[in-house]
Amino acid sequence: MKPIPYEKASPDVKAVFDDIKATRKVADVNNFWKMLANEPVMLEQTWRTVKAVMANGALDAKLKELIYVAVSVTNNCEYCMASHTAAARAKGATDAELNELYAVVGLANMTNRLANAYKPEVDAAFREHG
Amino acid sequence: MKPIPYEKASPDVKAVFDDIKATRKVADVNNFWKMLANEPVMLEQTWRTVKAVMANGALDAKLKELIYVAVSVTNNCEYCMASHTAAARAKGATDAELNELYAVVGLANMTNRLANAYKPEVDAAFREHG
Amino acid sequence: MKPIPYEKASPDVKAVFDDIKATRKVADVNNFWKMLANEPVMLEQTWRTVKAVMANGALDAKLKELIYVAVSVTNNCEYCMASHTAAARAKGATDAELNELYAVVGLANMTNRLANAYKPEVDAAFREHG
Amino acid sequence: MKPIPYEKASPDVKAVFDDIKATRKVADVNNFWKMLANEPVMLEQTWRTVKAVMANGALDAKLKELIYVAVSVTNNCEYCMASHTAAARAKGATDAELNELYAVVGLANMTNRLANAYKPEVDAAFREHG
Amino acid sequence: MKPIPYEKASPDVKAVFDDIKATRKVADVNNFWKMLANEPVMLEQTWRTVKAVMANGALDAKLKELIYVAVSVTNNCEYCMASHTAAARAKGATDAELNELYAVVGLANMTNRLANAYKPEVDAAFREHG
Amino acid sequence: MKPIPYEKASPDVKAVFDDIKATRKVADVNNFWKMLANEPVMLEQTWRTVKAVMANGALDAKLKELIYVAVSVTNNCEYCMASHTAAARAKGATDAELNELYAVVGLANMTNRLANAYKPEVDAAFREHG
Repeated sequence: MKPIPYEKASPDVKAVFDDIKATRKVADVNNFWKMLANEPVMLEQTWRTVKAVMANGALDAKLKELIYVAVSVTNNCEYCMASHTAAARAKGATDAELNELYAVVGLANMTNRLANAYKPEVDAAFREHG
Repeated sequence: MKPIPYEKASPDVKAVFDDIKATRKVADVNNFWKMLANEPVMLEQTWRTVKAVMANGALDAKLKELIYVAVSVTNNCEYCMASHTAAARAKGATDAELNELYAVVGLANMTNRLANAYKPEVDAAFREHG
Repeated sequence: MKPIPYEKASPDVKAVFDDIKATRKVADVNNFWKMLANEPVMLEQTWRTVKAVMANGALDAKLKELIYVAVSVTNNCEYCMASHTAAARAKGATDAELNELYAVVGLANMTNRLANAYKPEVDAAFREHG
Repeated sequence: MKPIPYEKASPDVKAVFDDIKATRKVADVNNFWKMLANEPVMLEQTWRTVKAVMANGALDAKLKELIYVAVSVTNNCEYCMASHTAAARAKGATDAELNELYAVVGLANMTNRLANAYKPEVDAAFREHG
Repeated sequence: MKPIPYEKASPDVKAVFDDIKATRKVADVNNFWKMLANEPVMLEQTWRTVKAVMANGALDAKLKELIYVAVSVTNNCEYCMASHTAAARAKGATDAELNELYAVVGLANMTNRLANAYKPEVDAAFREHG
Repeated sequence: MKPIPYEKASPDVKAVFDDIKATRKVADVNNFWKMLANEPVMLEQTWRTVKAVMANGALDAKLKELIYVAVSVTNNCEYCMASHTAAARAKGATDAELNELYAVVGLANMTNRLANAYKPEVDAAFREHG
């Protein structure tokens, strides 16, 4: 597939691009959205979900970007790491925070496999907090 | 493998268990550590790393537990979700925060695959924040 | 490891290469097979399985290629996405079909993690269809 | 988290539940939606995306369910396998089709790792179909 | 799907079951093969590949079982961990070996993510050993 | 993040680098450690764990490197495959051993998904070896 720039986009896609640009106060959408424009239904749903989920809420927007990076590092999605690290930094994340994030992600991936291997019974105290 | 309770543990293992109990101010270690005690070298290294990495730092301890949960949900590690959700709650995480966390984790796993599929070129603006 | 071209291949490997070329009506095998030729036993087993599994059956061959792409996108295997997208197209897959495929793959990866996180009990109605 | 049944749901959640029931012509929503109701924003976004993406399109709805199953098997999401296998069967999928699907998913997961290990160069012929 | 016991199996499936029993000198095949018998083509291909790949070779059979366990722990496949841990033990693997294996698997999963996050350039010295 | 060379490293980082160089009898540390030096606490913990876990024990060091490669191939970590394949070769691993390793890793990833799909009941005989 090829990226679809604004000027070649259908009216439906242009409407999503316009909303991304207005919401984020940017001059152009990034390449992810130009690629996803190949499937306008999914472009609209994905943007709608990003807009609703990634805004400040019980968790603030910077923290949500850090969680996004944690998932992307676990899955080794290079584009996603690049874009959400940039987004986290734009919301104030520092080198020190990112470095600690990477340490936690590495550690969790290790203990996840140790738990897979040893299969400890879930402690009674954890069950009530499920 | 079988869990190794405190009273059957070797002096090396007991020393780690004692440090976990003193650090966390708990009466007993949870089942993960009793299972990992089958491999005392790894028990010591894992606890040492958890102690060093999960403490308050540039990121606070509650946030680190939330990141741990995000990785564990991505990897579907049931024990880890149970134990680190409990730890996050003990550090103040609310239902509202956990629910938003799950939404971000779900969304990130979706866009990770959309990026895999469409392989957008990494935008120039992201590269400088790597 | 280095790719093993036809002219440098052992008789065993040549026999597999010949069968791939005859079955697919192609002048040369692709790079995956030339690399796998480093392990002739696995080359033979893998080709044998591909030949038996990917042919038309209850599911037609184009659909099987689309499923292959879905798995490869989930796992982020770049070579596999390239080769099986090409195979799907050769069997008639269109841009519209691939774009919808990517949307389903993204969505499934999201709801897989939401199910991991919330652990809904399997509905009674689903159990009888297992 | 606990499932939220219809009678205890907020008006926003009820509206989504009503749309699921009307769209699918079912008496009640399944447990996944009752759990996701803990996060009404994500419930709405997820349902909206499922409704838009999983309908008949360039790919028919049965095939989309099979792709969903392929991803869920790769990720080992037990609830998702159960629910989307049931959905695929409701749309006409047979035992023979599901068995062939599993074979393709297994095979793709194998060759994905063989490609990871041997890293064949992407053939020129594949690049033009990206 | 339901397991297919020997007495209800088709002649093709019986032939595979007989070969498994003769090769492994066991009275009955395990449940994995009885389930896979729902798809006789894949049953035959999988058994053929297991027989060819898991035998003593440059790596001995016990070590191959340990590698199988390492992959299964990484992927959290409970049945596979159970069956290949049993197979490794039957070939002489000890508790001490399994415990060290789990430690290596955990550690590798951690450093895999640290490498994903930090993306170090591949050292020149590694390239010549690829 | 940028790699931190020895001459720009803090005393804490230099101490870890010195221990790596002395333990491995190498003139410089590889790029992984220079990147991880951005987070000195995790650098120290990771090196300490690598040193303790990867040494000869019940499993010899070469075998541990092969297991590391198996995990890295499953997770598709390119840097890790490169570095641990080099380490395995330095400890005596041959092409024949690596090729067989890749075959086992591929096969295990296939049967892991077949087991996910068919969910065979764990055989009684396996349970006692858990």
